[in-house]
Amino acid sequence: MKYYPRPESGLDIHEINLAVEAAFREHGMGNVQMPPKVYITFPEGDFRTMPAYLPAEHLAGLKCVNVHPTNPQKGLPSVMALTIILDVGTGLPLAILNATGLTDLRTGAAGAIATRYLTGKKSVTVGLVGTGRQAAAQLEAISRETDVTGVRVWSRKEESAYKFAEKFSRFNCRAGTLPFVCDCDVLVTTTPSRSPIVMNDWVHEGTHINAIGADAPGKEELDPSILERAMVIVDDPVQAVHSGEINVPIRDGKFSPEEISGTLGEVVLGRKKRTSSGQITIFDSTGLAIQDLAIASIAMKKGKFVELEFL
Amino acid sequence: MKYYPRPESGLDIHEINLAVEAAFREHGMGNVQMPPKVYITFPEGDFRTMPAYLPAEHLAGLKCVNVHPTNPQKGLPSVMALTIILDVGTGLPLAILNATGLTDLRTGAAGAIATRYLTGKKSVTVGLVGTGRQAAAQLEAISRETDVTGVRVWSRKEESAYKFAEKFSRFNCRAGTLPFVCDCDVLVTTTPSRSPIVMNDWVHEGTHINAIGADAPGKEELDPSILERAMVIVDDPVQAVHSGEINVPIRDGKFSPEEISGTLGEVVLGRKKRTSSGQITIFDSTGLAIQDLAIASIAMKKGKFVELEFL
Repeated sequence: MKYYPRPESGLDIHEINLAVEAAFREHGMGNVQMPPKVYITFPEGDFRTMPAYLPAEHLAGLKCVNVHPTNPQKGLPSVMALTIILDVGTGLPLAILNATGLTDLRTGAAGAIATRYLTGKKSVTVGLVGTGRQAAAQLEAISRETDVTGVRVWSRKEESAYKFAEKFSRFNCRAGTLPFVCDCDVLVTTTPSRSPIVMNDWVHEGTHINAIGADAPGKEELDPSILERAMVIVDDPVQAVHSGEINVPIRDGKFSPEEISGTLGEVVLGRKKRTSSGQITIFDSTGLAIQDLAIASIAMKKGKFVELEFL
Repeated sequence: MKYYPRPESGLDIHEINLAVEAAFREHGMGNVQMPPKVYITFPEGDFRTMPAYLPAEHLAGLKCVNVHPTNPQKGLPSVMALTIILDVGTGLPLAILNATGLTDLRTGAAGAIATRYLTGKKSVTVGLVGTGRQAAAQLEAISRETDVTGVRVWSRKEESAYKFAEKFSRFNCRAGTLPFVCDCDVLVTTTPSRSPIVMNDWVHEGTHINAIGADAPGKEELDPSILERAMVIVDDPVQAVHSGEINVPIRDGKFSPEEISGTLGEVVLGRKKRTSSGQITIFDSTGLAIQDLAIASIAMKKGKFVELEFL
């Protein structure tokens, strides 16, 4: 059994995007086994267990990932993860991967795929609400698939936005207010917010939104009125209803599961698509176990590992 | 993060039994988080994901365990497992344990606890149906809590029964036919059978049965008529209905979930008990994630580990 301590280092973002896209294609065709995430809740956070099986890739296993929002105060990342990969034919554990960095990359990949299929544009301006690790991962992944001509960024802490803008100056990145940032082609929200921070009036027609931050019951980033104007694509309907951007509007009777237009898998298959250039499209990302398997598979081909005694 | 390659070696069986009993007590009081096992099925087997949180022990994590019945033909165990233990306060992965051997021991412990509470006898004769690793684990664990004055053992392969009897000659162990083996105080079934192999006529009044083998839909070892005569105690009602000894009788309308008398946790708390010396009692074991956490906690205090880079 192999252990990969730093499997994210040296990976090619485009290769990851393609592998995650292939996993969504299988998901769209109904060719995967993937029960909804199972949550265990702690006083100060939670952890989620995400098992899956991708028969086309002969790939199975699970990811275990926590979310403890106050960890940075203790010098630890909020989100840490391990992935276990099993041999399909025998169940033998083949590998354990430190999946903290991989989790950033595979979520970025889903955003890049959604952007490429749903914007219908070859070059875009990007607005980033939030400046954490996932904001950077989304920008890196999107820019590998779609030409990014400018970036606007907002953070609750103004200083963080300026630092981010400086770090990503190669994208002509500028810090600004929320309305300024929302004036873009591709809006990416990556905050842990529990009430809407992106208002309806700020989002113009034709915008594509990657709604990434909401990943647990009670979390939301978008004014629910935006959902009414939009085509809403989810990664997985069960997970999205439970914990995605739509979970609070559904709880409050402002959105219903029947209003989900389709899944990203169906978008990749060409079964669902933007119907006009003025349409607002939203990708509600909760994160799928098959994304974790797909990226683990790539990382296992390239990463350094230590051999562990098991049998 | 620590990795324990052989955490089962050198553990004290009585200490394990006590720790697992304490976990069942917490379960009986409703003080644990433990969603039902999640199954992923392969062409030749399956794997189960078992997350849990035991607040009283400040203990959380998950076990990942496969069942591939044809593995022995490939030189591998049918069942292999890994346990991940997380820090409750931060979600940081503290340890990964090879849980293959631990799984045998924690299942044995549940059988020992059920036997001690449900037989109402200080010394017993034991009948074993099946001679695999779990048969040995049950006998070892039971004998640490209850005086075993004799053992009878049956296997589909007569030779296996004779070998087992020789190995456990210290218990005055004898191989024999199924009716011979069923004439005992404590009957333990540990086969992967998918149709009843223990017939109603062979089981006399007052027998306690540890029904261990059935752990997936479609598996059963006992003639359903035995259930009608018995007080049926389960480890967890949801798991037992789904995949325990009672799953097939329920599917066939020969038993109903309402006929479950209680849980082992309730038995440990004294809320449920044998009502007469002639009553047949059945412990339907499916295996709980809290058993895995309890034994991992003990193993982490004593076992040898290697340190792995994580943060």
